[in-house]
Amino acid sequence: MRYKITIEYDGTDFCGWQKQDNAPSVQQSIEEAIFKFSSEKVDVVGSGRTDTGVHALAQVAHFDLTKEYPAEEVLGAINFHARPNKLCILECQKVSDDFHARFSAKERSYIYKIEERKVPLILNENRVWRVPEKLDIVQIQQAADILIGTHDFSSFRASHCQSNTPIKTINNIKIIRLESQVHIIISAVSFLYHMVRNITGALYYVGCGKISVMEFEKIFQGKDRTRAPLTAPAEGLYFKEVKY
Amino acid sequence: MRYKITIEYDGTDFCGWQKQDNAPSVQQSIEEAIFKFSSEKVDVVGSGRTDTGVHALAQVAHFDLTKEYPAEEVLGAINFHARPNKLCILECQKVSDDFHARFSAKERSYIYKIEERKVPLILNENRVWRVPEKLDIVQIQQAADILIGTHDFSSFRASHCQSNTPIKTINNIKIIRLESQVHIIISAVSFLYHMVRNITGALYYVGCGKISVMEFEKIFQGKDRTRAPLTAPAEGLYFKEVKY
Repeated sequence: MRYKITIEYDGTDFCGWQKQDNAPSVQQSIEEAIFKFSSEKVDVVGSGRTDTGVHALAQVAHFDLTKEYPAEEVLGAINFHARPNKLCILECQKVSDDFHARFSAKERSYIYKIEERKVPLILNENRVWRVPEKLDIVQIQQAADILIGTHDFSSFRASHCQSNTPIKTINNIKIIRLESQVHIIISAVSFLYHMVRNITGALYYVGCGKISVMEFEKIFQGKDRTRAPLTAPAEGLYFKEVKY
Repeated sequence: MRYKITIEYDGTDFCGWQKQDNAPSVQQSIEEAIFKFSSEKVDVVGSGRTDTGVHALAQVAHFDLTKEYPAEEVLGAINFHARPNKLCILECQKVSDDFHARFSAKERSYIYKIEERKVPLILNENRVWRVPEKLDIVQIQQAADILIGTHDFSSFRASHCQSNTPIKTINNIKIIRLESQVHIIISAVSFLYHMVRNITGALYYVGCGKISVMEFEKIFQGKDRTRAPLTAPAEGLYFKEVKY
């Protein structure tokens, strides 16, 4: 029986989604919680990986159990046994065997939260990227719009990205201001390694006037990561949702 | 020279605003940070006290230093020396000697955040009160409106409250829904001990249908704390602002 789960996590104390030796991962924490109530060793397959410090509002994964349980019971049991790890199953449902959390995904969305603030973060520590400048979201949206569609994203691809191709399709980028926060919401079928954080770093440069929209476009078209601005830090990034 | 400071803090690890033996308070943390850069032992006077676990978005306090510094320098020095305590000075300005953080205050506001959610909190842990029910904010607003004005608030007064009188004046209560969160924003000249948390506990009963608006009014007019519903927990409460 295949189960689909939707997961919220605080990435701060995890080494990321994927299992690693000697470091606590989201994947392993869930697998251990499943083992504790079912005594079954399962592989939990996520819709995509996230790095150390990156959060999830609604990551999706699947796994198979030989024994069948009510979905509500699986949800409750994982949440009980996963404590005190900072993750929680929001939803659990039984799905057919042809559902695959990664390969069935049609669109993934991320949200990146930037907070304009000169003093240290307190209540939003590890939840946003703090920048001292006021950002111009009209300029940011103009630059972001250049990225919509199918393009070569080499400028925003981490050097150790394992994808076969730098060609990706961005469906949408929405820039929203909420008081002193600027949110970048970005949707694509899939992403290159560090793509959202690299795009955010460049959009931040546009927003605070360090580069113009035209310079942003040149960097994008240059297809050279070494000429692009910084990678935005992990703590502002949230895996938002997956569409199937 | 008198300095006025505006402070954000995460109440989780503090015993509250006020100094106590053997427990870390916001007040003492600020006084120690001031001592570290000025070598002056000062009394930091807050606009009001907050309990263990209660946060502040913009608490206000004042203190006097014999030596005069630029306000920006005082702000930076406190923020530097207060680390790693979870507090931060947002603003600092020099004020005249007749300014008093507590006695000059004309209005104080709190915000209480409730999150409707059946599963444990992760990203909002210690930031909201989690309740499993869906809340009816129209009913909550109707009940809240009964409290506006000058009344005897004995029904919402903690037994160990030290105020001379149970008579207080509420200027405004606004109920806002933000997706799965309900925010109660309440303004008054001053409050009784636990008044916001006790009002919130009763409004929550109205919001989930455990009592009607009419029953809420009866409880309020009964002036008997023992007949009123629960005290909402500290972690959903934020000291929002003071007006002078």
